[in-house]
Amino acid sequence: MPTSLQPPICVIGLGLIGGSLLRAATIAGRKAFGYNRSIDAVAEAQAAGFDVFGDLGAALAEAEQQHALIVVGVPMPAVDPIFAAIAARAPSCTVTDVVSVKGAVLDAATRHGLHGRFAGGHPMAGTAESGWAASFPELFHEAVWVVEAEADTNPEPWLQTAQLALDCGAVVVPANAVDHDRAVARISHLPHVLAEALAIAGAAGHDLALGLAAGSFRDGTRVAGAAPDLVRAICEPNSTALLVALDEALAELHKVRVSLAETGTLGDLADRGHSARMRYESVKRPDITGIRIGEPDWANALCDAGRRGGVIRALDALS
Amino acid sequence: MPTSLQPPICVIGLGLIGGSLLRAATIAGRKAFGYNRSIDAVAEAQAAGFDVFGDLGAALAEAEQQHALIVVGVPMPAVDPIFAAIAARAPSCTVTDVVSVKGAVLDAATRHGLHGRFAGGHPMAGTAESGWAASFPELFHEAVWVVEAEADTNPEPWLQTAQLALDCGAVVVPANAVDHDRAVARISHLPHVLAEALAIAGAAGHDLALGLAAGSFRDGTRVAGAAPDLVRAICEPNSTALLVALDEALAELHKVRVSLAETGTLGDLADRGHSARMRYESVKRPDITGIRIGEPDWANALCDAGRRGGVIRALDALS
Repeated sequence: MPTSLQPPICVIGLGLIGGSLLRAATIAGRKAFGYNRSIDAVAEAQAAGFDVFGDLGAALAEAEQQHALIVVGVPMPAVDPIFAAIAARAPSCTVTDVVSVKGAVLDAATRHGLHGRFAGGHPMAGTAESGWAASFPELFHEAVWVVEAEADTNPEPWLQTAQLALDCGAVVVPANAVDHDRAVARISHLPHVLAEALAIAGAAGHDLALGLAAGSFRDGTRVAGAAPDLVRAICEPNSTALLVALDEALAELHKVRVSLAETGTLGDLADRGHSARMRYESVKRPDITGIRIGEPDWANALCDAGRRGGVIRALDALS
Repeated sequence: MPTSLQPPICVIGLGLIGGSLLRAATIAGRKAFGYNRSIDAVAEAQAAGFDVFGDLGAALAEAEQQHALIVVGVPMPAVDPIFAAIAARAPSCTVTDVVSVKGAVLDAATRHGLHGRFAGGHPMAGTAESGWAASFPELFHEAVWVVEAEADTNPEPWLQTAQLALDCGAVVVPANAVDHDRAVARISHLPHVLAEALAIAGAAGHDLALGLAAGSFRDGTRVAGAAPDLVRAICEPNSTALLVALDEALAELHKVRVSLAETGTLGDLADRGHSARMRYESVKRPDITGIRIGEPDWANALCDAGRRGGVIRALDALS
């Protein structure tokens, strides 16, 4: 693998994802440093032996000098000012991000003129915890890491981002921003919304209902335990795609409501839900091969393969 | 504890719950035997050393001779013929059940004239597996076991059922059938319905969405992996209470739909859902005390205590 695929890493924002990334990249032998706004987390990361700045300008100057790949790991509302700072202070660095939506981040990258050196990313990993203290390097092991490929994405930032994901122990799924955001609305944002509604309906049954709750309620409401600010930061930037998924779920729930009221049965809901869960449990992840990054139409070819469930486990297996 | 509280146990139906109960009661030192319709399960249970009949009449004759507590562990649709057989063949036995709804079972008990010697039960325990092969004696350890107390429930079947639950390692929550069915609609049946709808919405995103699914989708759809027949047998006999809980969830989801469409936000859903989940995580289970079973209005007093989250960990601690 040419050296240019593994430049130093500059992680902006050392929460659960960014902090875990700094740890994982370091363990993988990558030169990596970071920045965090909170002084406490900076001190903790420094005490743990990491090269971490509490000053954004200083971190970006170091990134520029080292031709680093900058990884933006801040919540969506903070992405805009970080991109503005990167445009001003690190004009030659490649850039990626680990934010949970891709369309809004891509728009921001374009607004700030970063587009030609940017490829978005989204590691599908997390826990109920947050912050540097919760970070750990194994977070990405065997996780799926989406690396965004648009028709006009440049090969260098895409390859650097994909290599970083692989170095952290993840497998890469290529997708464009629109497909990504529609997919995560279904399998991440809708689950959050349903979990919140289920928790509320359970608690409305007071201590008796909550005291009888066993596995189905515990698992079905687990993500309602996440901090409300975090849930909003994850779901709200993807409101358009979330609405589509929510409307589909509402249509199913209305159908079963009518069936329960008229016949006392679930209709075909349980059969179709069971088939859907079985399809999830048996989903195949074939290796993507036969695509040379940079060849004509490579991004579309990657996205087509990603839509079929394909993954990349090593860049040199790709072509 | 007087001997009459621990009569021999006759378990009718040796699936996951009934089979586990036969094992747990035996380990607790109780004399226990059973009946199952499937010859294969009878042979397996006999090979494992249990006293199991393949003939219902023979099992009930044995129960009558031993003054056993009969535990009905068959799916709701099979309850009626079993109660008819008990009425005909075991006229002096006390009776309980482990079916997941209580109103429909109570109605059946009344129809067959069993009411005076019946107290319903519902252990809140289960796995995704079913059948004798999946049964294990620890299934009830620390689980909640609802023991039904109606205004006209007699003390003897109630005490025998509660003692059996405790002998199996569970804690007892007293509730009447109406309260029980409303509560489990919220924390067991609604979770099933939402899990099925979520699984369908996820699978509509095809391989890309299913390939990106991580913890929130996996946990939120886990119970959609249960066999459709089992889901229907659990939910449909409680359709009236399930409709109430489903309508509450639909109202929440409509509210957040409007909020997403008009303002791109979740409104207050995440705050209220988080509070509800925190309430579930911190639910208190005080010991119920100061009630003598058989004293005037004892069943109502028990149900009031159960509504406040109270549990019974030993019968002699009750009064």
